[in-house]
Amino acid sequence: MTYQIGIGPNNRKSVYFDATVADGVACFSVYNHMFIPAHFGDPDAEYDSLMNGVAIWDVAAQRQVEIVGPDAAKLVQYITTRDITKTKVGQGRYVPICDHAGNLINDPVLLMLAPDRFWLSIADSDIALWASAIAAERGMNVRVFEPDVSPLAIQGPKAEAVTADLFGDWVKDLKYFGFKQTQLQDIPLVLARSGWSKQGGFELYLQDGARGSDLWNIVKTAGAPYGIRPGAPNDLERIESGLVSYGADGRLQTNPCNPFEISLGKLVDFDAEAGFVGKAALRKIKDEGPARLRAGFLLSGTAEENCAHQLDIKTSDSRVVGLLSDFIYSPRFDRNIGVGMISTANDYDRQDLMIVQDGASRKVTVTDLPFTKEKVP
Amino acid sequence: MTYQIGIGPNNRKSVYFDATVADGVACFSVYNHMFIPAHFGDPDAEYDSLMNGVAIWDVAAQRQVEIVGPDAAKLVQYITTRDITKTKVGQGRYVPICDHAGNLINDPVLLMLAPDRFWLSIADSDIALWASAIAAERGMNVRVFEPDVSPLAIQGPKAEAVTADLFGDWVKDLKYFGFKQTQLQDIPLVLARSGWSKQGGFELYLQDGARGSDLWNIVKTAGAPYGIRPGAPNDLERIESGLVSYGADGRLQTNPCNPFEISLGKLVDFDAEAGFVGKAALRKIKDEGPARLRAGFLLSGTAEENCAHQLDIKTSDSRVVGLLSDFIYSPRFDRNIGVGMISTANDYDRQDLMIVQDGASRKVTVTDLPFTKEKVP
Repeated sequence: MTYQIGIGPNNRKSVYFDATVADGVACFSVYNHMFIPAHFGDPDAEYDSLMNGVAIWDVAAQRQVEIVGPDAAKLVQYITTRDITKTKVGQGRYVPICDHAGNLINDPVLLMLAPDRFWLSIADSDIALWASAIAAERGMNVRVFEPDVSPLAIQGPKAEAVTADLFGDWVKDLKYFGFKQTQLQDIPLVLARSGWSKQGGFELYLQDGARGSDLWNIVKTAGAPYGIRPGAPNDLERIESGLVSYGADGRLQTNPCNPFEISLGKLVDFDAEAGFVGKAALRKIKDEGPARLRAGFLLSGTAEENCAHQLDIKTSDSRVVGLLSDFIYSPRFDRNIGVGMISTANDYDRQDLMIVQDGASRKVTVTDLPFTKEKVP
Repeated sequence: MTYQIGIGPNNRKSVYFDATVADGVACFSVYNHMFIPAHFGDPDAEYDSLMNGVAIWDVAAQRQVEIVGPDAAKLVQYITTRDITKTKVGQGRYVPICDHAGNLINDPVLLMLAPDRFWLSIADSDIALWASAIAAERGMNVRVFEPDVSPLAIQGPKAEAVTADLFGDWVKDLKYFGFKQTQLQDIPLVLARSGWSKQGGFELYLQDGARGSDLWNIVKTAGAPYGIRPGAPNDLERIESGLVSYGADGRLQTNPCNPFEISLGKLVDFDAEAGFVGKAALRKIKDEGPARLRAGFLLSGTAEENCAHQLDIKTSDSRVVGLLSDFIYSPRFDRNIGVGMISTANDYDRQDLMIVQDGASRKVTVTDLPFTKEKVP
């Protein structure tokens, strides 16, 4: 079943909206109160360009929360679980943000633009509200706001060639999450080696919302010799690669997760000198050991074309031992594959589980992530 | 132009999702990270049922933030601009929530369920994050969370008759925003006289997510003799009535507004004994007087079928003096009408303004809200 989306002012248009419409966007979702392309009408070709060529994605909905001022580093340290004291200007960091009970409420990439200026490149929750509440209540001398910054992603094995053609060979020296303030023609932007796929690539953090269509078209033109194709963050690839999606896999309101449950435990730095939100709760969670862990799942049955919503994973005698948060048919593995959570208890058979969707059941077996040819024979 | 919506796990399904699909929902939007019906394929008939009959709406995306515990009343008072000390159990209150700079960040209805238990029935922003950050940082003894509560609206002039048939004649005595804990057959819910229209009606705050389809169908059956019809919060009616939409008319990230700008100044109680977030900033804003105010607009030209996005309102010599946040063709007034903000300065002609949309200009004149036959001759 397909449904229309209401394009009204309640959700924002991306600065690339007009460009994606001109290029035939067919389907949108909403992320951080902004329309984000979901596909351009040919999911197979879009997946192929990401895996074997190069894709251009409007990811402006990955909004930035800017934290600037004398207490900026202090606030950033306080609201993330990582020790950021050794982070340098030009380095990015994947930083879980937890609430006071240790539940993940976002998993942004932190960009340190200056010693007193940071961006949090956020997943889908209102971290500007969270950070500004904490800053104000702690009397910190800092400004928290959403700047005019709109990421555009170039992803896939040929992304580096396209980006080097655009900016020069220096981009090849950028480390993962490394970034640089630069410009393209006269368009100001931050160029980072990053992106929400495991196929490699860059994100162009456009700093002038009036230039969205210009930037989109410059990248498209540069990518043409490489067969660049408009696409969108790809659910199939992210499941194959085991990437976490805050929102799909967990959300405070639907499936609260702590970092130890979802393979982000090594990003909790208890030894950091400064305290951080959730530290005491996370210490207790770590000491007790998580009752469930993130895992991959192989599912029997016919191809699932549409993403599902969260489903309980049960034993053959209907005991709930896990949660399937997302699954999809993978042509690469010729199998339905999914991600979610599974109990760490050892009183059940991990090879004999099931889900029930719309009255039909599928057999489920547990595997670790990412999916590989060895694990999915 | 119409586009598909991606129905995936990143946004939640309402507990009424299956029922709305069975009844032919055609278009969705996303609100509070949840899919919300936008229409069922016949906007004219849906508008008519709201204005002259009765409509059933899935408004589960109007999520509840529950605040419970010894410090609940203290937290609620601190995060809203109204004096709630005289609020009684069973009373609802429309309560602006501002940030520390006095910007509106939500405009929920507050329901006092018990002296130490409240719901905030929120517009589209993560108030659970906001409220829990403040509670934790202030060391308040309170729990903030999203309960299993999903409002279903019955709206329109015949809504009272349907609701009385379902619950009994006592519902006629409910005052506006008044509510009562009750049940329908064996389904637990809170019944309130409320809803996001000016046509009157009730909201059923379902308290058991497993019973969504049951409740939808019970209401539909009771409404059948009155010609009840599935619909959705109606953009045309809300513009005609001048209802504020946090998100469409203003949003912290796109068009930060304070209560004095958008006709909510009388809901800021400076005399309240306890302080509240934004009090000092709002005092300053009030003393200086707002530089712009909420207004209605009449627009020339052909009928606008789709909601627009925010557009600058300019004088004939291209000076920006306002912002049109939403507009639509009103068959009732046979005119394009809109809402937005206009400068309080008196150095321009309020009857000779313009917007430019997709290269075409429309003449704009200012009026006050709501729209009436006298104002729109």
